Amino acid sequence: MTTDDDRWMDRALALAARGAGAVSPNPLVGAVVVSPGGAVWGEGWHGAWGGPHAEVWAVRDAERNGYGDRLTEATLYVTLEPCSHTGKTPPCTSLVLDRGFRRVVVAHEDPFPAVVGRGVRRLRAAGVDVAVGVRERAARRLNEAFLTHVRTGRPLVTLKTAATLDGQVAAASGDSRWVTGRPARALVHRMRADADAVLVGAGTAHADDPALTVRAAPLGPGQRQPLRVVLDRAGALPPGLALFTDGAAPTVALVSDGAAPPYADALRRAGGAVLRVPERGGHLDLGAALDALGGGADLPNGVRPVQSLLVEAGPGLATALLAADLADRVCWFVAPKLLGAGTPALGSLGAGRMADALAFEDAVWETVGDDVLLRGYRRAV
Amino acid sequence: MTTDDDRWMDRALALAARGAGAVSPNPLVGAVVVSPGGAVWGEGWHGAWGGPHAEVWAVRDAERNGYGDRLTEATLYVTLEPCSHTGKTPPCTSLVLDRGFRRVVVAHEDPFPAVVGRGVRRLRAAGVDVAVGVRERAARRLNEAFLTHVRTGRPLVTLKTAATLDGQVAAASGDSRWVTGRPARALVHRMRADADAVLVGAGTAHADDPALTVRAAPLGPGQRQPLRVVLDRAGALPPGLALFTDGAAPTVALVSDGAAPPYADALRRAGGAVLRVPERGGHLDLGAALDALGGGADLPNGVRPVQSLLVEAGPGLATALLAADLADRVCWFVAPKLLGAGTPALGSLGAGRMADALAFEDAVWETVGDDVLLRGYRRAV
Repeated sequence: MTTDDDRWMDRALALAARGAGAVSPNPLVGAVVVSPGGAVWGEGWHGAWGGPHAEVWAVRDAERNGYGDRLTEATLYVTLEPCSHTGKTPPCTSLVLDRGFRRVVVAHEDPFPAVVGRGVRRLRAAGVDVAVGVRERAARRLNEAFLTHVRTGRPLVTLKTAATLDGQVAAASGDSRWVTGRPARALVHRMRADADAVLVGAGTAHADDPALTVRAAPLGPGQRQPLRVVLDRAGALPPGLALFTDGAAPTVALVSDGAAPPYADALRRAGGAVLRVPERGGHLDLGAALDALGGGADLPNGVRPVQSLLVEAGPGLATALLAADLADRVCWFVAPKLLGAGTPALGSLGAGRMADALAFEDAVWETVGDDVLLRGYRRAV
Repeated sequence: MTTDDDRWMDRALALAARGAGAVSPNPLVGAVVVSPGGAVWGEGWHGAWGGPHAEVWAVRDAERNGYGDRLTEATLYVTLEPCSHTGKTPPCTSLVLDRGFRRVVVAHEDPFPAVVGRGVRRLRAAGVDVAVGVRERAARRLNEAFLTHVRTGRPLVTLKTAATLDGQVAAASGDSRWVTGRPARALVHRMRADADAVLVGAGTAHADDPALTVRAAPLGPGQRQPLRVVLDRAGALPPGLALFTDGAAPTVALVSDGAAPPYADALRRAGGAVLRVPERGGHLDLGAALDALGGGADLPNGVRPVQSLLVEAGPGLATALLAADLADRVCWFVAPKLLGAGTPALGSLGAGRMADALAFEDAVWETVGDDVLLRGYRRAV
């Protein structure tokens, strides 16, 4: 059953979503100040990294609307536990107590180890009625990249594939233009815009020479082109690739310790970087690669740790990610066409029986133009 | 733009559909008698093979409703050109003229070579205003099996496949239980119920020993278990298979001229038949097999020529049908799971580039439980 609390939290979540792409590495947060009679007195959301938090904007909005004297009557809905520490801004719990809110509803606790539960405890200690867990699942999905990054130090990894009905990503010749229609390809650009970084393997980089930039979809306010990452174990990609030369966005090449990529100096001069990653079984260690991207220490100047990574994988990389259980979610486009024997989307995952197939925690189909897209999560956030 | 004629024809089409499964080898037909003011005076549909036509039921319904004296004012909507010949029942054009209808709206002409256009010409010659082509496409879809059979002498062939996202129909071991979920499997039983016959290859018959009967969906009024057909070129399937022994429905085995199937006598005693089909390139000639099923001369007693054939194909048969362009439509289930290397749904179709992939004239996605189904037509009806 949907309660009033659920409905107001949904409103706060919708506000939170307005910050998408603009607040990373902060989480998306929304807040609503609601009167005892069920009217909105103020709304706010976290809209810029380092800027005021959602609670601050919502309170300011209520004050501007003339309800500054009556906030003790109001309920504050906020999608994330109010902070209790002084970071770039003063603690939100102080604001809540200062304005005299008597009731606060929170979707879920702040996952930061140094913070978790402290904001709620501080409010409760001061006599505020605090409800935690309203629309928690939806709120966690909204910040799934942030939460994954806080928990694991690695980005949320989205594996994107586009295949025919019969599971082919290219003809036997390698030709793959195009599997899906224009709307699906535009949606991939939107996925890029929503990701901190986009990753391809050396095979795709070599065969397709992709720019990996957002072109077929608008960048949202505050969004910028995602970091481009290419796995190039041997460091043997040609220096003339668009990724290395077009200057459209910074590029990071992940190479093995022994590699001497010919593009290293030019890439550094163009604001990119070459990162060394250990090998494992003849391939780059994908876990170590994710650690490097999530840690961020060696990323180019001005590039923040990667919380969300879109992998536009060919069959080899897709199989490796799935086999190592490193894909958190899968976005799989299916085009309504039959190719027959070509380039299969995946190699062996070691499934001996149909019951061993990789399933999803949570899967949603949507149609995109003539194609369908499965968005599936390998695990709950 | 949807006109009044369109809307009344939609109503007639909905009525026509009520005869599904009960009128084959006749077409589905619906009729509505509409007053000048836009009220329904009478409705009817063809509901039983050899029974009165839709026009007759609609006129009787109008008369029972007290409008028998006013039919000259009314418009008759009928999904198929009224017949002008005496078959099992008197010609409907005579009924239309006898009751004095001044306007008749028809979705499309009767495709029978001996009939096509004659009904319309007879009405027009008598001064009736006849419109032809209203909702023609939808009406043709409704009778696609009938129309295909009239045009080609072969059944409408529906190829059904169920594969994982990555296009595998079974694990490498052959295990395929289950690709899709229960709702999709129940829908396949509904597809069987709507087909005149269900066909499998020898590999599937041997490996799965399927009954091919309708169990997980109810049979509609007038529907019966579909004819079961198995391709057994060598005539080497074991006599103990359910298809040959369970007596749940007649079974036809298609074998090559030289085969001596050990189950032949038992099958005939059980009401089934063995049909000889020529070979072509080491396989049964699929076109000749369809001719035999559509012609019907050698089918068991009481089995009518097959207008609609559901092929529950494994990879070999599916590839052969598609490569020979003998599948009229494809029903392809996709399950939200990833198997990796297993048993691919298709072998080579000779597509050298992605642009050579088999596409569909008309394709619709629907979700079925956790799975999706693509219904795609290889050509317009």
